[in-house]
Amino acid sequence: MATPAPVETAAMRRAIELAARGLGHTSPNPVVGCVVLDSEGRTAGEGWHQRAGGPHAEIHALRAAGERARGGTALVTLEPCNHTGRTGPCAQALIDAGIARVVYAVADPDPSATGGALTLAAAGVDVEGGLLAVEAAAGNEAWLTSVLRRRPFVLWKYAATLDGRVAAADGTSRWITSPESRADVHRLRAAADAVIVGSGTARADDPQLGARIGGLADDEISQPLRVVVDSGATAVKAGARVLDGTAPTLIAVAEDADASHLDGLAPLVRLPRAADGRGLHLPALLQALYDREVRSVLLEGGPTLAGAFLAAQVVDKVVGYLAPVLLGAGPAVLGDAGITTIAQALRLDVTDIERLGPDLRITATPARHALNEEN
Amino acid sequence: MATPAPVETAAMRRAIELAARGLGHTSPNPVVGCVVLDSEGRTAGEGWHQRAGGPHAEIHALRAAGERARGGTALVTLEPCNHTGRTGPCAQALIDAGIARVVYAVADPDPSATGGALTLAAAGVDVEGGLLAVEAAAGNEAWLTSVLRRRPFVLWKYAATLDGRVAAADGTSRWITSPESRADVHRLRAAADAVIVGSGTARADDPQLGARIGGLADDEISQPLRVVVDSGATAVKAGARVLDGTAPTLIAVAEDADASHLDGLAPLVRLPRAADGRGLHLPALLQALYDREVRSVLLEGGPTLAGAFLAAQVVDKVVGYLAPVLLGAGPAVLGDAGITTIAQALRLDVTDIERLGPDLRITATPARHALNEEN
Ligand SMILES: NC(=O)c1ccc[n+]([C@@H]2O[C@H](COP(=O)([O-])OP(=O)(O)OC[C@H]3O[C@@H](n4cnc5c(N)ncnc54)[C@H](OP(=O)(O)O)[C@@H]3O)[C@@H](O)[C@H]2O)c1
Ligand SMILES: NC(=O)c1ccc[n+]([C@@H]2O[C@H](COP(=O)([O-])OP(=O)(O)OC[C@H]3O[C@@H](n4cnc5c(N)ncnc54)[C@H](OP(=O)(O)O)[C@@H]3O)[C@@H](O)[C@H]2O)c1
Repeated sequence: MATPAPVETAAMRRAIELAARGLGHTSPNPVVGCVVLDSEGRTAGEGWHQRAGGPHAEIHALRAAGERARGGTALVTLEPCNHTGRTGPCAQALIDAGIARVVYAVADPDPSATGGALTLAAAGVDVEGGLLAVEAAAGNEAWLTSVLRRRPFVLWKYAATLDGRVAAADGTSRWITSPESRADVHRLRAAADAVIVGSGTARADDPQLGARIGGLADDEISQPLRVVVDSGATAVKAGARVLDGTAPTLIAVAEDADASHLDGLAPLVRLPRAADGRGLHLPALLQALYDREVRSVLLEGGPTLAGAFLAAQVVDKVVGYLAPVLLGAGPAVLGDAGITTIAQALRLDVTDIERLGPDLRITATPARHALNEEN
Repeated sequence: MATPAPVETAAMRRAIELAARGLGHTSPNPVVGCVVLDSEGRTAGEGWHQRAGGPHAEIHALRAAGERARGGTALVTLEPCNHTGRTGPCAQALIDAGIARVVYAVADPDPSATGGALTLAAAGVDVEGGLLAVEAAAGNEAWLTSVLRRRPFVLWKYAATLDGRVAAADGTSRWITSPESRADVHRLRAAADAVIVGSGTARADDPQLGARIGGLADDEISQPLRVVVDSGATAVKAGARVLDGTAPTLIAVAEDADASHLDGLAPLVRLPRAADGRGLHLPALLQALYDREVRSVLLEGGPTLAGAFLAAQVVDKVVGYLAPVLLGAGPAVLGDAGITTIAQALRLDVTDIERLGPDLRITATPARHALNEEN
């Protein structure tokens, strides 16, 4: 009996949910979820890719299904892999388990990879792609972007008043946004592989940059790599909260910076300066992070660094926390992004608006960076 | 047979809709809607207060109902009046028509007025107040505020980028917001009795400040009084678009200003200067408008004047059009509002969020001005 379509769609939805549990833990791999249905269309096994180096989603689901996988259907959020990784190719594992049909959401985006779909089809498995592809791609947004762009996905997060200020005239800013918004930022941190701030923020706020999530124990949260972009190696000093040892830290400094006071305190990465002399070359920074298997970056500011990222066109998504507050004075949320006239304005598409306590969270995608432009 | 409650609620909702048709036309009176149900609970007549000086809503509805009003129920958005105006007191008209029951939403807010409810009850009419009072009060927000504060209701409207800019670094700003947002601003203008801009905006933009609404003929739109706050009488010159004669205009100048070049071009109002010397005394401006029967003002900026209104605590509501655009430079949407540290921040309650094309419209009320604080 063929599994009816609504059952498969529901199972794919579940697989997408399962995949999301891996966020923040799987880089440089994608998040993947898998549901195995038995030949009658009943759920026989579930799995998700839990961490890089661990078994893929399909392997977990097949193990859970055991003999019930035979003649069944596997719903996978990403095309099963074909290469022999640490746990062997998933396509072969699905064939070996006697799976009769494989439905995946998103095709393998790596043009150099031979997808598992061909292998499965060649073995007589009924293969179909594209089910809930948009939803599944959204769940893997960071990884897919990093594959397409060969650099980490960059999410710029800011918190500001309605009139676009990040602090009052005297510099005070605690707290503009609500506890709900601040908790949400910690969820963004936990889902990211790295968090970046500029030397100005490091100097002004001495931020700790760790992810703390109410109800979750420390070992349940994946702490991002904390990155401070500090060309002259002058902002981060012994005793800085980013050096507290609770998570890895990386200080990005200029090739010629005197950073001897940081010896043994934090790993350094030496990078070329930007052509315009304003700090470090950002593509080099992103490449250095990519080389360290960072696939998603949460850019936490400040305004100067965010402006430079936007000017370099390396921001893929913007999440703004807008507090219903007016100040009329104080530093602006975004500094020079190389825009001088309205025709050059950076236009975005708002993809989501959410209320977080008294605040609004606006999610938007720079129009010229839309992922689907290239798909 | 008593009219069942759901019928009355539906009729009151209809009365609130009818009332809204009067917005912009009734000052210094409130907007009022009325539905008369016959003794069986069927709609017998509808009416609304269409313009100051014209019949009240109850009179229109009673006329439409004719003999069917006898033994019926009148639903009115505001407590019927008791005074003898140009069309006689509505309470008496309801009694004369043989109405058996009157249900009103909002009580007469003027403490010095003897409401019609007592008169009705004394005549043996069954009277009840408070039905859909919150909804009806929202529809009469401007008028109710003006009664409570003895000055016009002030709505500050702004249009800005996500990063709080109103123009790019070179001053260009056409168009930051979408056609949908701009059309919405014209609806705000038509609903207001007066529109105010500062001399800076008059100088920079030479705005016309008229309300144009697609699908409505000129005579269907109520044009607001156009007010330019121009202490030195230097910004508005012959040929300025606010002097085009399509709607009344008022130039507010300082008592000592030389405004001879405006003789015969536009009415002037001479006002004292603000104590801090930065322009005119805003309470005096609002009083002058109130004396001209202005009950609602749309403050269109710019940033400097808006800051002064906020500092003077005379903004009752804020409507922000946020375009999903980033600029990173350019003038800020709000200037000095007398706030120097975060504890003084002006906090608002967001009451509505709407998408207008690509933009967001955020409606908010300054927390310390909440109307219900005083109710
Ligand atoms: N509300 C928010 O969302 C938020 C978030 C973060 C920070 N903030 C506030 O923002 C303020 C600090 O912001 P900020 O603008 O002064 O500093 P920032 O953006 O944190 O750091 C700017 C510095 O980063 C370094 N940098 C390295 N490479 C760069 C490049 N390619 N382009 C630009 N800069 C580069 C430069 O200093 P070097 O030459 O020394 O490397 C530059 O001066 C603080 O008050 C903080 O509280 C607010
Ligand atoms: N995006 C938007 O929503 C929006 C809306 C409007 C304007 N704008 C832009 O804003 C810019 C103009 O803004 P602006 O800030 O320069 O000028 P503004 O706010 O329009 O006008 C400020 C001027 O108003 C006069 N004024 C009179 N009484 C005042 C008082 N009590 N407090 C403060 N000012 C008082 C003062 O000049 P006097 O001493 O000469 O009287 C003052 O300089 C333009 O570029 C315009 O395009 C944007």
